[in-house]
Amino acid sequence: MDHLLQEGERIDQLVSQGVQIIQSPDVFSFSLDAVLLAHFASIPKRGTIVDFCSGNGAVALFMSPRTQAKIIGIELQERLADMGKRSIILNQLEEQLEMKQLDIKEITPEIKSDSVDFITCNPPYFKEQPNSKKNPNPYYAIARHEIHLQLDDVFSSASKILKMNGKIAMVHRPDRLMDILDSMRRHRIAPKRIQFIYPKEHKEANTILIEGIKDGKTDGLKILPPLYVYGEDNEYLPTIKEMLHGSR
Amino acid sequence: MDHLLQEGERIDQLVSQGVQIIQSPDVFSFSLDAVLLAHFASIPKRGTIVDFCSGNGAVALFMSPRTQAKIIGIELQERLADMGKRSIILNQLEEQLEMKQLDIKEITPEIKSDSVDFITCNPPYFKEQPNSKKNPNPYYAIARHEIHLQLDDVFSSASKILKMNGKIAMVHRPDRLMDILDSMRRHRIAPKRIQFIYPKEHKEANTILIEGIKDGKTDGLKILPPLYVYGEDNEYLPTIKEMLHGSR
Repeated sequence: MDHLLQEGERIDQLVSQGVQIIQSPDVFSFSLDAVLLAHFASIPKRGTIVDFCSGNGAVALFMSPRTQAKIIGIELQERLADMGKRSIILNQLEEQLEMKQLDIKEITPEIKSDSVDFITCNPPYFKEQPNSKKNPNPYYAIARHEIHLQLDDVFSSASKILKMNGKIAMVHRPDRLMDILDSMRRHRIAPKRIQFIYPKEHKEANTILIEGIKDGKTDGLKILPPLYVYGEDNEYLPTIKEMLHGSR
Repeated sequence: MDHLLQEGERIDQLVSQGVQIIQSPDVFSFSLDAVLLAHFASIPKRGTIVDFCSGNGAVALFMSPRTQAKIIGIELQERLADMGKRSIILNQLEEQLEMKQLDIKEITPEIKSDSVDFITCNPPYFKEQPNSKKNPNPYYAIARHEIHLQLDDVFSSASKILKMNGKIAMVHRPDRLMDILDSMRRHRIAPKRIQFIYPKEHKEANTILIEGIKDGKTDGLKILPPLYVYGEDNEYLPTIKEMLHGSR
């Protein structure tokens, strides 16, 4: 498989999903958030799924064993999209998965309006502000800060390409909850499921998973059971281990 | 103390707070939600606290040992307000606590604009809809359904009487979260702290505690650690027992 790797890259396994993924500490490595998002998403069995801010395609790859839907990853950064393309080849998933290098703000007509059943998105978390501290590595800076993509762009583009009653699942930070809900409302997406992730017992939540439905009713929001990541011993708890390694 | 009781009423103790409260199963009894709200609220040490939808005054009474602030309960139903008044006498708290029979929609000028430091509210949870199933007991129906008071009335009146940076803490149902946040925004109250209450592990949340600040910034929302009510044995968990009985 070495012919698929560039300098500084390695192949990691996500055993629980039986997929391999090309990573590079210099450029991009998927985080636990991608695993949590793929696990949380109520992905359809068939149809079309689009993964926004796909990075090296982690979320798209992790979802693939659980659905027969076509999955299209969208990633702005050429270097990351290229890693994703090679991971698709590595896993022989060319028939199900595709990676497009594309700006989400220009999603149509590349992806047709009202054509998508489900969207996942692990967007940049941090507001872009003058003088805000950013990662000096531009790959990470673009992936983490709203430099090229604002939260509202995500829901605007999502609303365009989703079918009526299509859904979008996102992972983000709880302190952005109000921004997320505002933007969802603006683009006619009703939140339906929220799960908060807590690093440990007795700590505040540091991650939110949220799923909404296009043109859905705003009542009937469900707050799922909380999820803790680490035990008192600072090791992953069994639920998280199972997501990562498939063991129980 | 019997001269303070009417037919069908009894005196209950909330041992953890050292207060006694007049209840009547026929008319109104406080619920765990009142205890959770009083415990969650980041009540000020001094100033003026107003308890909306005060019922028999449970939340006001529970907060009293933790503050030197003046506490004013507001209750629409004469019968319930009267129970609250007698509980205040029972606890010899006439100097600190007061109960007013008043419609929250007509809160000013009885309570002056921009004069209150903190508000608590355990409002009716259920939307009033034609043909909605209501408790045949009118006392309970009014306390539980938005018959005389809508959610938006609560935040509208709260915003009027709160000082700048004054706070309101509310207990409600998670499926109304979007309505709560919409109404808070409309009345310039920024949510700052949210805690979800889960009946048990692995169950969805059935209660939300939310606190907001008048004219505050909308960023910096915190999601507090989750709270579970019952253990696997269907008994109250130690945290809840402590709130109720003060034992650990």
